[in-house]
Amino acid sequence: MSEINRVWRLRKRPVGELTDDVLSFEEEGIPEPGEGECVFRLNYLSLDPTNRIWMSDQDQYMPPVELGAPMRGVVCGTVTKSRNPAIKEGDVVSGLGVWADYQIGAQGFVNPLGDTGPVPVIDAFGTFAVVGPTAYFGLLDLGAPQTGETVVVSAAAGAVGSIVGQIAKIKGCRAVGLAGTDEKCRWITEELGFDAAINYRTEDIPAALKKACPDGIDVYFDNVGGSILDACLKQMNLNGRVPTCGLISQYNATGEVPGPVNYPMILMQRLKVQGFIVLDFASRYPEAIGALTQWMGEGRIKVRQDVVDGLENALMTLKKLYTGENTGKLLIRVADV
Amino acid sequence: MSEINRVWRLRKRPVGELTDDVLSFEEEGIPEPGEGECVFRLNYLSLDPTNRIWMSDQDQYMPPVELGAPMRGVVCGTVTKSRNPAIKEGDVVSGLGVWADYQIGAQGFVNPLGDTGPVPVIDAFGTFAVVGPTAYFGLLDLGAPQTGETVVVSAAAGAVGSIVGQIAKIKGCRAVGLAGTDEKCRWITEELGFDAAINYRTEDIPAALKKACPDGIDVYFDNVGGSILDACLKQMNLNGRVPTCGLISQYNATGEVPGPVNYPMILMQRLKVQGFIVLDFASRYPEAIGALTQWMGEGRIKVRQDVVDGLENALMTLKKLYTGENTGKLLIRVADV
Repeated sequence: MSEINRVWRLRKRPVGELTDDVLSFEEEGIPEPGEGECVFRLNYLSLDPTNRIWMSDQDQYMPPVELGAPMRGVVCGTVTKSRNPAIKEGDVVSGLGVWADYQIGAQGFVNPLGDTGPVPVIDAFGTFAVVGPTAYFGLLDLGAPQTGETVVVSAAAGAVGSIVGQIAKIKGCRAVGLAGTDEKCRWITEELGFDAAINYRTEDIPAALKKACPDGIDVYFDNVGGSILDACLKQMNLNGRVPTCGLISQYNATGEVPGPVNYPMILMQRLKVQGFIVLDFASRYPEAIGALTQWMGEGRIKVRQDVVDGLENALMTLKKLYTGENTGKLLIRVADV
Repeated sequence: MSEINRVWRLRKRPVGELTDDVLSFEEEGIPEPGEGECVFRLNYLSLDPTNRIWMSDQDQYMPPVELGAPMRGVVCGTVTKSRNPAIKEGDVVSGLGVWADYQIGAQGFVNPLGDTGPVPVIDAFGTFAVVGPTAYFGLLDLGAPQTGETVVVSAAAGAVGSIVGQIAKIKGCRAVGLAGTDEKCRWITEELGFDAAINYRTEDIPAALKKACPDGIDVYFDNVGGSILDACLKQMNLNGRVPTCGLISQYNATGEVPGPVNYPMILMQRLKVQGFIVLDFASRYPEAIGALTQWMGEGRIKVRQDVVDGLENALMTLKKLYTGENTGKLLIRVADV
C-alpha cells in the first residue's frame, strides 16, 4: 500500500479524440478528512462515456471539471479515516469521487455500499453504481415497453445497452441491438438472448433495422445519437418513445454536429424523446438494485465486467469507450476489496 | 345556392413552395349519402399548416391525400340530406371533410357542432374545431406549465400560438412569443397580454430570447422547428418540455433539412420533446371547449379570425400560412350559417 497519493488532474479541455495531454498523473499527499467527511483508498474506478463530457466545457448536466482539478469519476473504495458518524474505518463506500488513490468522501457524495450478498463487490459496484439503474429507469420509466413491443438499443454490447436488452426480454418484448463487431453481435444474441443484432459498421443500418423490426420500433433506447438515431427515428411506430441516455457518437466531434434529419418524425409519429441521467432517480436506486439482484440471481441478466488493472492506465483505457473496443462494463481495478 | 358542386382535387405533390398546379378546381355533381352518411353544403373551410403535409407523400400521421382525390380539410357545413339517424337536415356539422361545396359526411368524421351559445358559428368553428384544443392540450398536457415558469411559443400571432400564450398567462406563467412583424408583436403584447414578443425576422433570436427569458425557458411550444427551435433548445431549463405541434419552417423545403444542432440539450437538460396532434385528444374535446368558452366569455382569451370569402380562393389563401402573411385563424367562408 503506497503512502504516495497518485492523482489524475484535468489539464486541457479535450478537442476531438482524447489525447494523452488532457490529464496529468501527479504524486501528491494524502488528504485529511474535514468535519463530516471521510477519506478512502480507491479500489475500483468506473469508466463511463460521460467522463468525456465532464472534461469538456460544453453545456452539460453538472458543472464541468475545472482545469487543474482532479478528474471526476464514479468510485468504490475502503475508508481509512472518518469524521462522518455514519461511516467508519474499513467501510466500503461508493459514489462520486475523483481519479486518485486516496480521496475525500464528501457527505452525500459517497455512501456505504452495504451488504452485496453472494455478489462480489466488483460486480455489485460495476452493475449497481451506474449502469444497472441507468438501464432500468431509462427503459422502464421513460421507455415504458409493453409486452410484444419492439425495443431497439444502440451500443448494445456496452454496459448499459446489454442490460437494456435483457430487461426488454424479461418484459416480453422483442429486443434488437446494434453493436460494432460480429463478436459483440454474437454475444448479445447467443449469450444474452437478444432476438436480433445488427453490426452497424458492416451492415446497411436502415435495411437491417427493417428486417430485424418487421413491426417497426416502439422504443429506441439511444446511447449514441448520430446516424443510428436517424435510422431509428425513421422506423418508429406511432407514439414511440426514445429514452435518450447518451450521444456518444458525437462526444469526440469537433465543431457542430448536425441534428437528426428525421427530427420531424417526432411530430409525424407523436414520439416522446426524453433525456435523463440516472442521478434523477437516485431516491429509487433500491428498487432497481432489488430487481437487478433478483434477475441476476435467476440468471436472467448476465453482466460482463471489462477490468483493467492500475490507476495509471485509466486515461488510456477510457479511450476504448469511444472507439468501440470494449464489451461490458469498463472498470479500473486498483486493489480488490 | 348553386347546384353545381365545385371540388378542389390534388393533382401534384408539392415540391418547395405551393404552386397553382398542385390542385385543380373542378365542377362536378352533388353526391348522394350512403347508409349512415349525410351530405352537407360547405359554410366554412379551415386552412391549417398541416394541409401542406397532407398534399405531400412525406411520412405523416394520416395517409396522404391520393393524387386525383378531393383535397382534405377541416370543414363546417349545413346538412342537406341525411341517412344517419343522429344527424338531420339543417344540422350544422363540423369535422374532417374535403374542399368542396357539397360533400359526404362519413360517420365519425363529422359531428353536429351543437349549440354555440352567444358565440357566432364562425368563431366557434374557427376556435374550437382545431386550434383551441390544439393549444389547450399541447400546452397543458404536454407542456404542464407551473406558476412562475416561462413559456415560449413560436408563430405566436398564429391561430394556435396566440391561444397558447394566453393560456400560459391564465396559468400564471411568463409568456413570450415570436412573430414575424412588429405589428404582430404589438398585437400579442398589447392586445393579448404576452409579457414579451420577439420579431424573429429583425432581431437576433438568441440574444432576444436571453433578454425576454431572464430565468430561462421551461416550456417551448414549437410550431415552426428550424432556427427558432435551435435557439430555444439552447436556453431550456432543466427538465424543460417541448410540445411539438408543427415544424412549419420546413414544410416548403426541398431536400433534407438538417436537424437541430442543439439536439444534445435534450440529454444535457433532460428535456422532454413530444410530438402530438389534436386528434389524439378527441375524446377530451368537451373539456377544452368548456374551458375555452369560459375564458373567452371572461375576456381572458381573445381570438382573431382571418376570413377570406370564396372557395375558389382556397389555394391562394393557403399560401399565406407559409409566408407569415396572416394573423389569427385563417378561414374560407362560402356562406354564413
